[in-house]
Amino acid sequence: MQKPKYQLIVDFIKDKISKGEWTIGSRIPSQRHLAKMFDVNRSTVITALEELMADGLIEGKAGMGTIVTNNTWTLMGEQSSTNWNEKVTLGIHKPSISTVQEINEAESNHHLIQLSKGELSPEIFPLEEMRSILQKVSNQMTPFGYEEPKGNLKLRQAISDYLKNRGIDVSPSSILVVSGALQALHLISIGLLQRGSSVFLEVPSYLYSLTVFQSMGMELKGIPMDKKGIKVDSIYQTKGKGKSILYTIPTFHNPTGTLMQKNRREELLEYCKREQLPIIEDDVYRDLWIDTIPPEPLKSMDYYGSVLYIGSLSKTLSPGLRIGWVVGAESVINRLADLKMQSDYGSSTFSQLVAMEWLSSGLYDQHLETVREQLKVRRRTALEALNKHLSSYATWEVPTGGFFIWIKIKPAFKVKRLFDKALSKGLLLNPGSIYAEQSGQFIRLSFGFASINEIKVGIFQLSQIIKDVDD
Amino acid sequence: MQKPKYQLIVDFIKDKISKGEWTIGSRIPSQRHLAKMFDVNRSTVITALEELMADGLIEGKAGMGTIVTNNTWTLMGEQSSTNWNEKVTLGIHKPSISTVQEINEAESNHHLIQLSKGELSPEIFPLEEMRSILQKVSNQMTPFGYEEPKGNLKLRQAISDYLKNRGIDVSPSSILVVSGALQALHLISIGLLQRGSSVFLEVPSYLYSLTVFQSMGMELKGIPMDKKGIKVDSIYQTKGKGKSILYTIPTFHNPTGTLMQKNRREELLEYCKREQLPIIEDDVYRDLWIDTIPPEPLKSMDYYGSVLYIGSLSKTLSPGLRIGWVVGAESVINRLADLKMQSDYGSSTFSQLVAMEWLSSGLYDQHLETVREQLKVRRRTALEALNKHLSSYATWEVPTGGFFIWIKIKPAFKVKRLFDKALSKGLLLNPGSIYAEQSGQFIRLSFGFASINEIKVGIFQLSQIIKDVDD
Ligand SMILES: Cc1ncc(COP(=O)(O)O)c(C=O)c1O
Ligand SMILES: Cc1ncc(COP(=O)(O)O)c(C=O)c1O
Repeated sequence: MQKPKYQLIVDFIKDKISKGEWTIGSRIPSQRHLAKMFDVNRSTVITALEELMADGLIEGKAGMGTIVTNNTWTLMGEQSSTNWNEKVTLGIHKPSISTVQEINEAESNHHLIQLSKGELSPEIFPLEEMRSILQKVSNQMTPFGYEEPKGNLKLRQAISDYLKNRGIDVSPSSILVVSGALQALHLISIGLLQRGSSVFLEVPSYLYSLTVFQSMGMELKGIPMDKKGIKVDSIYQTKGKGKSILYTIPTFHNPTGTLMQKNRREELLEYCKREQLPIIEDDVYRDLWIDTIPPEPLKSMDYYGSVLYIGSLSKTLSPGLRIGWVVGAESVINRLADLKMQSDYGSSTFSQLVAMEWLSSGLYDQHLETVREQLKVRRRTALEALNKHLSSYATWEVPTGGFFIWIKIKPAFKVKRLFDKALSKGLLLNPGSIYAEQSGQFIRLSFGFASINEIKVGIFQLSQIIKDVDD
Repeated sequence: MQKPKYQLIVDFIKDKISKGEWTIGSRIPSQRHLAKMFDVNRSTVITALEELMADGLIEGKAGMGTIVTNNTWTLMGEQSSTNWNEKVTLGIHKPSISTVQEINEAESNHHLIQLSKGELSPEIFPLEEMRSILQKVSNQMTPFGYEEPKGNLKLRQAISDYLKNRGIDVSPSSILVVSGALQALHLISIGLLQRGSSVFLEVPSYLYSLTVFQSMGMELKGIPMDKKGIKVDSIYQTKGKGKSILYTIPTFHNPTGTLMQKNRREELLEYCKREQLPIIEDDVYRDLWIDTIPPEPLKSMDYYGSVLYIGSLSKTLSPGLRIGWVVGAESVINRLADLKMQSDYGSSTFSQLVAMEWLSSGLYDQHLETVREQLKVRRRTALEALNKHLSSYATWEVPTGGFFIWIKIKPAFKVKRLFDKALSKGLLLNPGSIYAEQSGQFIRLSFGFASINEIKVGIFQLSQIIKDVDD
C-alpha cells in the first residue's frame, strides 16, 4: 500500500528537521512551493502542516510564514549572526533586495530571454581554444601544492606584460592575483578600509560593490555622473584624510555604459591628488571596446601609488575562471596578499595556469578581436530594435564598449510593473532601482548574453509590454 | 660607456618610487639585500643610498631601516589600514610572527629538508590520474559562466555521497563548496560570529585558524588536551549563550596528531548540547588514517544542526585545487553561501569539475589507499629514526593518522636555538612556540612531505644539532 501523499510531505519535513538541516526559527517553504514540489493540492499540504503543528515541530507566525519550533536547542546561526541580506539597507542606494534575489533565481532559468546577464554569451565562449589550453596545461603539469601568496609568478609576469600594453608599467611584485575582481573589492574592504569610513562612488554603481562596502560598515556617498563620467566637482569630502576613498568604474561603467573621457580622467586624478583621496579603479570592461581604444587607465597616470587598479578575465573570457588582479603600491599589495592568504590561501592552481596560458600565448588578444566583432553586431541589433520599437517610450545613449545599454523609460511608465510583467512573459531585465533609488526610471539591458534573435524578440516584446502596462 | 654600478641601484629605486610601487613610509630592502641583488659591495650600495638621501627621496630612521620619504602625498595604505600581521598578537597563544614568516619563506627553498610542510610529498601526487581527469573535464566541457552560489550541483552531490560513507547524511542543499577549509573558517568568522565573541579551541591549534579568528576580533580561549582529545571538563563558559563557539580538530589534530576517542566525542557533544555551545568540526585529516578507520565525525551524531562540519581535498590530493566544503543546517549554509557570493562569487569552475571527477569516479578512494601505504612507510621510517637517534633527548606519541609527530624535547634544550641552528644547516622544522606559548618545548615534525631518505637524514641531523646546542 502506498503512503498517503500528505504523509510524504510530513516525512520530508521531519527528516529535514531531524537532520538539523532546517533549524529552529527557520522558515519552511511556502504552501504553494510545497504543493508544486509534491505535485499535490494546497489542501494536502495544509493537512501535512497541521500534523506537524500538532507534533509541536512547526508553528505559523504572523507575517513570517511557518517556522520550525521543535524543542531542541537553537543553534549559533539563529542566535548571534549577522544576516547579510538584511544588513544591506543602503543610505543613498536602496537596492530592492527581493528584486535582486528574484533576478538571481531567474538567471538560471534557461527558458527566459536573458537581457539582464552581465556576461558574454555561451556562443562567444572560445571552447576550442579553452580545450587546447587545458591540454597544454595538462601536458606541462607537475605536482603542485599551495601557491605563492601573491599568485603564480608566471601568471603575474603575464599580467604585467598585459598591463604594459594598456599603459600600466608595474612589476609582478606589485600585482596580486585574486579570485575575480569582486574578491579584490572584498579584500580591500576588510583589509584597508576602516569601519565607518566613506566610499565615494558613481550613482548608480555596480551592485555587488555596494553590498561589499556596506557589509563592512562603510558609508556610501553617491556622486552623480554626466556623459563624460563622474562629476568631479560634485565630490567633496566631509571628513579628514585617511577616512575616505573613491571607487570608480571609468571605462564602460556598470550599469550605465559611460566611458570617462580623457580630460575628465585628468581632472579626477588632479582632484584626488589635491584632496589626498585614494582611488579604486575597477577596469573589468576595458577590453570590451567596440569603436576605439578607450583613454588610458587612471593608473597609467598615477605617479604617487594612490590608485589601486582592478582587472579580471570574467567579462572577456569566462567568470568561471575566477581570475582577476589588483595592482598597486607594493606595500599595499603585500598587505592584501597577506589577507588573501588568510582568507583562502591563494587561487586555484588550474585557473591560474589556464589564465597564464591565455595571456602569454597571445590567444587572449586574438579572442578579444572575435569578441569585439560579436559585440558590434549585437549592439547594432539591439540599437536597431530599440530605434524601431522603443523610440517613443524611452531614450538611451549608444555605448562605445561593454555590453550594457542604460535605457530611460519615459516617466509615464512604471518600471517595476514593467519588470514583473516582462518576467511573467519570459523576459528578464534589470530594473534601475536595484542600483540606486534615483534610477527607478531606468532599465539595464545587456546585449552580451542573449542570442541575436533573442535580442530582437526581447526588445520587441518589451515595447509591447510597455504599451500594455500603459493601458 | 657603461653606467656606474651605483647608478643602476639609484635608477632602480627611483623607478620603484616614481611608479608608486614603493610608497612613502615603506622600507626599502636592506643594504645586504641590495648588495646581493646587484652583485656589488656594501660600499657601492651606500654610495647609491647617499645620493638618494641627498635627493630627499629616502631617509634612514633609527630602528626602522631606510624609509621612502619623497614629498608627495601619502596613500591610503599607510594611513588608515589595519596591519594584519601586526594585529596577530594573541592572548593565550602568542605565535612568534617573525618565526612564521621565516618558515613561510624557507618553505619555498628547495634545498632544505622540509620536515615542516603540512602537505603531501610531490612523490605522492597522482600526476597520471590528474592528467586523465583534466582530459575528461576538457572533453566534456561546455561554455561556462558564474557558478551557483553553493557550488556546482554535481560536485555537491558527489560530496554528499562521499560524506554518506563517513557517517554524515546530508543533501546537497546543506553543503557549500569553498575554496579550501581555510575559506570556510574565514566565512564563518566574518559572517556568523560576532566581534568580541569567544572561540574555545584546543591548545595548541592550527596556526591559521588562530589568525582568522583573531583578525575578526574573536577572543580565543585555549582548552588543554590529553591523549584522548580535548579535555571536556576544562571547557567552561564565561559568557551567556550565543556568544561562544567551539573550534575543534578531533581527527589527527594539527599540530599534535591526537585522535579524539569515540567516548570523548560523545562526552563533548553531550556537553556542548547542554551548554548550547555550537561546534566547528575541522576534519581535513580524516582520510589520512594509517592504522584503523577513525571514530565517526561529531557531525554524524549531531541531531540538532549544531555542528558545522569542514572538509577539504588539500591534505589528501592537492592544496592547489583549493576545494573544500562546509556542511551544516541549511539556513546557516544559505547564509554562508550568500557571503561566499559577496566575497568571491564562487570557486573556480575548473577546480570544481576536477574535484567532482575525483570523487565521483572512485579514483579518489583508490588514491587514498596509495596515500595510506605511503604514510605507513614514512611513519615507520620517521619512528625508527626517532627511536634510534632521539630517544634520549625527546618523547613523542605515535600518531595513528595524519602526518605530524609532536615531539617534546627535554627541558634541557632550547627549542628556539635548535630551530635556528637546524635552519642554518638546511633543515626546516616547526617549533611549537608558533602554535602556543605553552608549547615552547615541542617541535612539529611532518613525515608527509620530505622523501624517505630526507626523513632519515633530517632526523639524524636533528639529533646531532641537539647534542651540539647542548654543548
Ligand atoms: C564593475 C564590475 N566589477 C567587478 C565585477 C565582478 O567581476 P569578477 O567576476 O571578476 O569578480 C563585475 C561583474 O559584474 C562588475 O560589473
Ligand atoms: C586543521 C586544518 N584546517 C584547515 C587547513 C587549511 O586547509 P585548506 O588548504 O583546505 O584551506 C589546514 C591546513 O594546514 C589545517 O591543518
